[in-house]
Amino acid sequence: MKDDCIFCKIAAGKIPSSTIYEDSHFRVFLDINPLTKGHCLIVPKEHFTNIYDLDAETAGKVFTLATLISRALKNVLKCDGLNVIQNNELLAGQSVFHFHMHLIPRYKGDGLIFMGEQKPGDMEEIGKIRDLLREELQ
Amino acid sequence: MKDDCIFCKIAAGKIPSSTIYEDSHFRVFLDINPLTKGHCLIVPKEHFTNIYDLDAETAGKVFTLATLISRALKNVLKCDGLNVIQNNELLAGQSVFHFHMHLIPRYKGDGLIFMGEQKPGDMEEIGKIRDLLREELQ
Repeated sequence: MKDDCIFCKIAAGKIPSSTIYEDSHFRVFLDINPLTKGHCLIVPKEHFTNIYDLDAETAGKVFTLATLISRALKNVLKCDGLNVIQNNELLAGQSVFHFHMHLIPRYKGDGLIFMGEQKPGDMEEIGKIRDLLREELQ
Repeated sequence: MKDDCIFCKIAAGKIPSSTIYEDSHFRVFLDINPLTKGHCLIVPKEHFTNIYDLDAETAGKVFTLATLISRALKNVLKCDGLNVIQNNELLAGQSVFHFHMHLIPRYKGDGLIFMGEQKPGDMEEIGKIRDLLREELQ
């Protein structure tokens, strides 16, 4: 546990939260500044900064848990869709530097736009990036 | 494999893609309509519509793979951040109805905004939703 980390404290139960699920590895709680009704966060109890340092075991468990919570959100809130968003580093919108995953139920007329417009890419550049990443991932 | 599903065909290699990683369960390829340089998709070879019907084993593997790909994107592209986005149902921006996860490297000045403004929620409503979800998840 990191002393100055608010999500370490919430995950450990030292700061109260609107918890909807807890096990030995994770706490899931409703965001008090929700984008939509039922917006919640999956937070591991162990401190990881972001996806780059998340260990393989926790990574595996976090998305299995996300499927469970997603089905509950769908069943209970009758949402019309759901975005799973996980931000890494300040520039990508990460505001608490303890790994967390947002589950955001969507409703007709909620006005949120997440992905923006996708335009055809430069296939030569895409080919170069592909080769670099294939080599890195070998 | 679903006959009319483009991601089943891409995952099986029947339609070419800029593949950066492949194993027996997944194909990862660069989006040809990228939001940013290195925007890629993790796609399971088995057909699942979205997070609601994704099985526990595949769910576990997909995010472990996401950590591996994220580190490669960071190392190769020197991005300043990374968003992981997984959309479910049309209203949430899902356009291909075969489960997939977006990895979107972020760069200074790319102009993308994913999360929007979060405002304080109604704590009475949050309490009610918490109770309903806790019951569902018991």
